[in-house]
Amino acid sequence: MSTFGTIFKVTTFGESHGLAVGCIIDNPPPGLSLTESDIQPQLNRRRPGQSAITTPRDEKDQVVIQSGTEFGKTLGTPISLVVRNEDQRPKDYGNKTMDLYPRPSHADFTYLEKYGIKASSGGGRSSARETIARVAAGAVAEKFLKESYGIEIVAFVTSVGGEELYPETEQYPCRSQNPDFTALLSRITREEVDSFLPVRCPDADANKRMEELITRLRDAENSTGGTVTCVVRNVPSGLGEPAFDKLEAIIGHAMMSIPAVKAFEIGSGFGGTKMLGSDHNDPFVAEAAAAVADPASTGGAIPRPKLRTQTNHSGGVQGGISNGQDIYFRVGFKPPATIGKDQTTATYDGSAQGVLAAKGRHDPCVVPRAVPIVEGMAALAIMDALCIQQSRFAMRGLRRE
Amino acid sequence: MSTFGTIFKVTTFGESHGLAVGCIIDNPPPGLSLTESDIQPQLNRRRPGQSAITTPRDEKDQVVIQSGTEFGKTLGTPISLVVRNEDQRPKDYGNKTMDLYPRPSHADFTYLEKYGIKASSGGGRSSARETIARVAAGAVAEKFLKESYGIEIVAFVTSVGGEELYPETEQYPCRSQNPDFTALLSRITREEVDSFLPVRCPDADANKRMEELITRLRDAENSTGGTVTCVVRNVPSGLGEPAFDKLEAIIGHAMMSIPAVKAFEIGSGFGGTKMLGSDHNDPFVAEAAAAVADPASTGGAIPRPKLRTQTNHSGGVQGGISNGQDIYFRVGFKPPATIGKDQTTATYDGSAQGVLAAKGRHDPCVVPRAVPIVEGMAALAIMDALCIQQSRFAMRGLRRE
Amino acid sequence: MSTFGTIFKVTTFGESHGLAVGCIIDNPPPGLSLTESDIQPQLNRRRPGQSAITTPRDEKDQVVIQSGTEFGKTLGTPISLVVRNEDQRPKDYGNKTMDLYPRPSHADFTYLEKYGIKASSGGGRSSARETIARVAAGAVAEKFLKESYGIEIVAFVTSVGGEELYPETEQYPCRSQNPDFTALLSRITREEVDSFLPVRCPDADANKRMEELITRLRDAENSTGGTVTCVVRNVPSGLGEPAFDKLEAIIGHAMMSIPAVKAFEIGSGFGGTKMLGSDHNDPFVAEAAAAVADPASTGGAIPRPKLRTQTNHSGGVQGGISNGQDIYFRVGFKPPATIGKDQTTATYDGSAQGVLAAKGRHDPCVVPRAVPIVEGMAALAIMDALCIQQSRFAMRGLRRE
Amino acid sequence: MSTFGTIFKVTTFGESHGLAVGCIIDNPPPGLSLTESDIQPQLNRRRPGQSAITTPRDEKDQVVIQSGTEFGKTLGTPISLVVRNEDQRPKDYGNKTMDLYPRPSHADFTYLEKYGIKASSGGGRSSARETIARVAAGAVAEKFLKESYGIEIVAFVTSVGGEELYPETEQYPCRSQNPDFTALLSRITREEVDSFLPVRCPDADANKRMEELITRLRDAENSTGGTVTCVVRNVPSGLGEPAFDKLEAIIGHAMMSIPAVKAFEIGSGFGGTKMLGSDHNDPFVAEAAAAVADPASTGGAIPRPKLRTQTNHSGGVQGGISNGQDIYFRVGFKPPATIGKDQTTATYDGSAQGVLAAKGRHDPCVVPRAVPIVEGMAALAIMDALCIQQSRFAMRGLRRE
Repeated sequence: MSTFGTIFKVTTFGESHGLAVGCIIDNPPPGLSLTESDIQPQLNRRRPGQSAITTPRDEKDQVVIQSGTEFGKTLGTPISLVVRNEDQRPKDYGNKTMDLYPRPSHADFTYLEKYGIKASSGGGRSSARETIARVAAGAVAEKFLKESYGIEIVAFVTSVGGEELYPETEQYPCRSQNPDFTALLSRITREEVDSFLPVRCPDADANKRMEELITRLRDAENSTGGTVTCVVRNVPSGLGEPAFDKLEAIIGHAMMSIPAVKAFEIGSGFGGTKMLGSDHNDPFVAEAAAAVADPASTGGAIPRPKLRTQTNHSGGVQGGISNGQDIYFRVGFKPPATIGKDQTTATYDGSAQGVLAAKGRHDPCVVPRAVPIVEGMAALAIMDALCIQQSRFAMRGLRRE
Repeated sequence: MSTFGTIFKVTTFGESHGLAVGCIIDNPPPGLSLTESDIQPQLNRRRPGQSAITTPRDEKDQVVIQSGTEFGKTLGTPISLVVRNEDQRPKDYGNKTMDLYPRPSHADFTYLEKYGIKASSGGGRSSARETIARVAAGAVAEKFLKESYGIEIVAFVTSVGGEELYPETEQYPCRSQNPDFTALLSRITREEVDSFLPVRCPDADANKRMEELITRLRDAENSTGGTVTCVVRNVPSGLGEPAFDKLEAIIGHAMMSIPAVKAFEIGSGFGGTKMLGSDHNDPFVAEAAAAVADPASTGGAIPRPKLRTQTNHSGGVQGGISNGQDIYFRVGFKPPATIGKDQTTATYDGSAQGVLAAKGRHDPCVVPRAVPIVEGMAALAIMDALCIQQSRFAMRGLRRE
Repeated sequence: MSTFGTIFKVTTFGESHGLAVGCIIDNPPPGLSLTESDIQPQLNRRRPGQSAITTPRDEKDQVVIQSGTEFGKTLGTPISLVVRNEDQRPKDYGNKTMDLYPRPSHADFTYLEKYGIKASSGGGRSSARETIARVAAGAVAEKFLKESYGIEIVAFVTSVGGEELYPETEQYPCRSQNPDFTALLSRITREEVDSFLPVRCPDADANKRMEELITRLRDAENSTGGTVTCVVRNVPSGLGEPAFDKLEAIIGHAMMSIPAVKAFEIGSGFGGTKMLGSDHNDPFVAEAAAAVADPASTGGAIPRPKLRTQTNHSGGVQGGISNGQDIYFRVGFKPPATIGKDQTTATYDGSAQGVLAAKGRHDPCVVPRAVPIVEGMAALAIMDALCIQQSRFAMRGLRRE
Repeated sequence: MSTFGTIFKVTTFGESHGLAVGCIIDNPPPGLSLTESDIQPQLNRRRPGQSAITTPRDEKDQVVIQSGTEFGKTLGTPISLVVRNEDQRPKDYGNKTMDLYPRPSHADFTYLEKYGIKASSGGGRSSARETIARVAAGAVAEKFLKESYGIEIVAFVTSVGGEELYPETEQYPCRSQNPDFTALLSRITREEVDSFLPVRCPDADANKRMEELITRLRDAENSTGGTVTCVVRNVPSGLGEPAFDKLEAIIGHAMMSIPAVKAFEIGSGFGGTKMLGSDHNDPFVAEAAAAVADPASTGGAIPRPKLRTQTNHSGGVQGGISNGQDIYFRVGFKPPATIGKDQTTATYDGSAQGVLAAKGRHDPCVVPRAVPIVEGMAALAIMDALCIQQSRFAMRGLRRE
């Protein structure tokens, strides 16, 4: 379906060759300051054409708020966000061979199987352009999260192809054991990430290696994958629902729904499967008194917990519920399916094999532009979990005789 | 929330120290043959006490169908499944130190933060016992999937701690490149998996190494993690919804919601992020004529697609929608948090540090018993996606002028 | 579907000839005192066999809490409630003519059309027994509503056949204009209603006329319909969601889902369609200072509004949102379809007409026993709306810069 | 919430003083012919300014399809519909007294209570303009329903104030007993209804009386209510879900969510509560052979049932499930709250009483323009129920061994 969330619900629409893409945000918090200028920066970070290594398709992607605000404040009613498709160029993809052949590992074939009708763009809704709505809605969520709880969400590139920022090592077979990595998680800012353009890997050396790799692949009309790591700081404890809607399940759902994502891990992840329980468990220690808010003074906000953990292999989530520590996770993106190199494949009807030469514009690696998408989806996941827990927290506090 | 699915909806209840655990399955297909004997085998595979390396807690876990069937056929109305908790032993967990200290990396602390009330079992709903309802509901889904489409779901253990069945190698840095692995996926059966008890790793040598590792950890009162790989064969094309409910997002959600899971990857997964697009893309070839059902003869069933792919790095899902190839994925489980070794940690109120000696029963590694849980959740995810697509497929076929 | 609610979600199961009926309540407030004794009284009021004018089927309908509570307090986890079917007697309905003929205006025919399988009970889920789960879940909701906000829910019988408590009159063409009626709404208690057993019409004269009518119909093996009116007092302002989930839409949905209900009206209802706007509008007046809670002292609770209305033709809901005044509505029940009189009708296959002589047990009028069902569904509707608004109210209150 | 439906899901946005109103339709059937010209006619019927008795606010209300179609066919992906607000005139409502006083029985007060922020339009989302999105989405649903199953939906005005088309009479105390009324239901068309403009009551005499009443009220700056009756013909059997989502509960929810609606009844409704069961039951008779489709020839469509009923007091729904007969229901609208007459009421803060003179534009009676809104919501309710049942129907038909 096209909706994410239970209370803070985002429904998106749009394919790359239609009039517009956008979304409706249902149940936004009322009274939040919000104008287009709160949303546009993240769209700009997602936008193609930011550098020589991303697709030259240059679109302005200007967001317009169509409802739900007045005089710069949210009314609490649905916020409709829309971005026009200014540079549709349907002809670009529409060459002859692409009419005959479903592109390998693209969505052309599966969309036709699903819907029984062929869109001129192939799998239109599987387009990266669909993610505009996610980034826009995420920016709204993020604004509330920041202003109400000081929540910070920062994503960055941790690998491009085989070039990694924090590879598994003999010393630290699991990344969550690596003190450099966990230190970075606790301090990295979006500004720092963007000081490493165009790749957005916050390490000068790794950034350079990654950029060179992407440039080589662009010239070879080929592509590769990569990973994005994201940290969410200052999340209240108690978010996430037992059983099916554990916080990691909701965040995992959010990430796995981003185009080209094939893998997700939270906290110690796959690396942690090799650890011993005695090393993996995160012992509790008392939180510094100054950090523990007085519940009476929080005005309805969930107070900070009295305990924190010494290590954080759990990634901020235990038993499916946030414990107040940094939530961090890693997302794996496959190589883009659209490549310039010739590919031998079958026609739609299976009657022949032939050579497909895709001439469309494409990124050789999606992770630099995926950074704001990961942040946006993280914001949506946390925001909805917060809305649900906030209801329960309020009810817990009601006096009963 | 405690519900999974949109049409085929499963809602679960129960904690380890209550009267029972169970679920309601809403909107099951009517007219399906179903008795307890269709469900019990998977519960037996999940059951503790199957071998020396699993917890000695011996429960019969007998399922009872309370509604929704008559004379061994489903009525289409909600099926209520219930399993009594016969061996509650609340005292076992209730020792003095455990009243004072939240167990590290367990759910005791987060449940208290969330609900403001301490259950005698700590994080009761985070108990492995909650998964009984998933396995039971999954068995119902699986029966329909098998009888209507011949869908087969088989999971097996691929690693315990550092002992792996198909590690990444220099030759095959990504598992989806390894022909032994993909061959295994195409033929493995549940019977073969269970011929490798107690670990359920379908390779004599790896199985032995894993068993030895688990035995050592049990004796050391420690624990470790592991991975389970699952394949789903004969899935119709067209399952999965664009945008947020891509099939991999739904399956990922399902898997990440299983207790102790920290990682998920589908198809090439994290390994695939290092490949080149030209290698990663799965070219199409015509399906053998015999395998393509005549739509007119399918009686409402979705026909097999005319194309298949030569490789399957995609894991059976492209653009979020199934393409008819094998769907396979890997799930990472962390080391169980409950260990016998002493742990230094803080008291609930943060006033002191001390040593927690947990004396409860526990598994040193959960993956052998996780196999039917992974299968059950896979069945729920596929079943609901099928229900949704079946509606669309029927509507596509309606004549319109 | 079998679920009601978004946050406080109730999922029910069970048909009259299965092992049990019951439900799962997801997301109950944690820390609420709750035992079976809080639920049983409403089940007893719904129970058949309470008097000579209801069906002689005598069942104990003892509810058991299977999960979600410990030491008499809710844990916040799903509450599973179950009531065994002790008196199944499937033979009673299973006579020969009933195998041949779908009972007129019963669910036998439509269930077969829907599911393609014939349950021995005909339309099993359409049984009045399905309402047990609603009443049980409603009692849990009601306990919280009463203890947290002092909300009172009282339903009573306002007509049986043509015998009415407050008919439309020339003086008061619309019931909401009748001061006796609105005065009754503001003071009626459940105890007073039950002092008018067996009919539950809180007026000695009307009650007697109704009882006599039901007795005559019972002797004639016939049936008639009736209406139940319900009032909900002390509801906080702000409940109900704009657009599709207006509070009256949610309550209307809840009521129209009760078996045999054909009509619903809130506030002035159909009578109000004949009034002038100048008479129908409810002018505001200041609420007495004593009644307006100090927000700072409410501990997270929504404070009472500063205004009340002089009249209440709106029925406590304006623009789909509660305004803090009494919410009241009327529900119309059709005559029970199961009657003893012979009926000429067609066989299932349409091959013949014949005479159906239904010999099952039945009530000549359902409204006396419908009273707790209406109350239960009202509690579920209000409770879920409160959960949603409580989240928004908490977020409104969070400090933002 | 702002979403209606489970599969065919409609999410709306927009208030009267924002940039636009509109909706997203998720999961539309793919391959349906659809352009703006399929939607605009119903919007034109809803539009203000159609005659001297409706509000002079003249807006073009031109709908634009922003996504989900290509070359005039639906892709199956979300359809975004948008209508710009051309005539916003925020000043018109914004007079001084309206800043001080919440308008009686309008949503100004409850929106402020709910959201804690005052929109310049008062209760913006409670505006009749919100219904544009419902009508537009309904037109899309209706097109599919007509083309796939020949379903016809026709609504018309049955009363304005005390002027009624088919009042309850001594001979026919319940309208469903009146043969003139049921004959009208079986044959009325939208064209016939629109031949009785401006009131849309399909009876020359009643139409005239109603028009005169509205004219008198307009001149008196007052308002009144009325009723709209709607019939849905050729609905397949089997629609509607047991327990909470009975078809009448879904339709009732849909209707009660329309602004100003206070009452809903289906089939015999409140009148039927006075009937005897022996009169109210609808006996079955065999359907004419010609009308029963051969299931083998329906291409996935649900076939017509073999039985029909002689009478139709049930209104086409039995046990919550459609039986294939005409579904008909009546909807009661209260008098519009916005009237020109002076009203004495309290200020927002309760500090004073005063006279409110509302000078906004308004309709003296909403029912003529409510006709397409009722039709649209009926289409949404039926369409979603059809999508759900179509899935089950397909699964019923799958061969199993």
